[in-house]
Amino acid sequence: MAEFELYCFKESGNAYKAAIMLELSGCDWSKHWVDFFNGETRSAEYRQNVNVMGEVPVLNHGDVHLTQTGVILNYLSEQTGKFGGQTDDERREILRWILFDNHKLTSYTATYRFMTNFMKDADKAVTDFLGGRMHGAFKVLNSRLEGRDFVAADQPTIADLSLCGYLFWPDEFGASWDDYPEIGAWLDRLSQLPGWVAPYDLMPSGPAA
Amino acid sequence: MAEFELYCFKESGNAYKAAIMLELSGCDWSKHWVDFFNGETRSAEYRQNVNVMGEVPVLNHGDVHLTQTGVILNYLSEQTGKFGGQTDDERREILRWILFDNHKLTSYTATYRFMTNFMKDADKAVTDFLGGRMHGAFKVLNSRLEGRDFVAADQPTIADLSLCGYLFWPDEFGASWDDYPEIGAWLDRLSQLPGWVAPYDLMPSGPAA
Repeated sequence: MAEFELYCFKESGNAYKAAIMLELSGCDWSKHWVDFFNGETRSAEYRQNVNVMGEVPVLNHGDVHLTQTGVILNYLSEQTGKFGGQTDDERREILRWILFDNHKLTSYTATYRFMTNFMKDADKAVTDFLGGRMHGAFKVLNSRLEGRDFVAADQPTIADLSLCGYLFWPDEFGASWDDYPEIGAWLDRLSQLPGWVAPYDLMPSGPAA
Repeated sequence: MAEFELYCFKESGNAYKAAIMLELSGCDWSKHWVDFFNGETRSAEYRQNVNVMGEVPVLNHGDVHLTQTGVILNYLSEQTGKFGGQTDDERREILRWILFDNHKLTSYTATYRFMTNFMKDADKAVTDFLGGRMHGAFKVLNSRLEGRDFVAADQPTIADLSLCGYLFWPDEFGASWDDYPEIGAWLDRLSQLPGWVAPYDLMPSGPAA
């Protein structure tokens, strides 16, 4: 049995945040596929037994069962000693950008992508609203990266791994990094980290054979 | 000069999260009113000099300048020794619920309230979407509170202070706690904490005299 087990599915950028952290940190981990598109995460059983929030990812590590990517990333950073901050200031900056990601960047990007890419019949007023908010968040991130290699420190941290979760799929939410060159260059840097694997190559699309 | 300075305005539930923490912890703090409704937080000057994210609140404490309520709450808990977790498990639960608040509860509730209460001319499809997401988050919180007095531990923590930020204004987003009795009872418990002050009584509505 692997040391860590991650509940995930390949289309989930939130699961990717945890998956790429496990992979880049060289952890021994296994993948438990969740059937999101048939409603598994929203079932009463899943909410009761796995996660009351009805979400992926979930990380199991011995007796520790964690949800929320920010908690999982923080825990893995403590466990592995990798991708964390070196000072209190850096640790606060990391948390600040993880919160911004959850509140303003992933929240709108993931929902916009889901509605335009997977649902097809979403209301245009709603997707226009979400797309506007998504681009607002991209502007903030692009500004932040001016003159910086990584978001929260001189080296890559879990803040970068959180923020990039959905951003390797610009085609799926109709954005071009030509419009946000700092984001494009930063994603290139992340994808050159030793051991990096793209989301669709890292996570499963069905139950293990 | 007060020890802590908080950038805030009375209609901001996000600012209230920090304000009520300062107040309940007995901190020496001053209020710096921000003219949100005339666009101050979205100005180039504010983004450049105060917060690239274009948001309230901001906490100043000597040379430390913090944004994002989750970071501010965590910092104040460390500084005061109050409303934090007692164990690693509790600290992870606190962070988990602060992230849920940012991603799923405050994000939709604050935007829905703003669009229906302050904008008036918002698109109905958009407000219906946001309202649906908001009620989804209320259901999760109500479930979580079954059999518990507080969200993350046996005692009140910064997770409660984060989640309650907008919830003392149910009339402003058309909800009734009769439909979510666990939330209603929990808000009553919070409002009975020694030193508690309601949002509109705690934060300024204009520049200091």
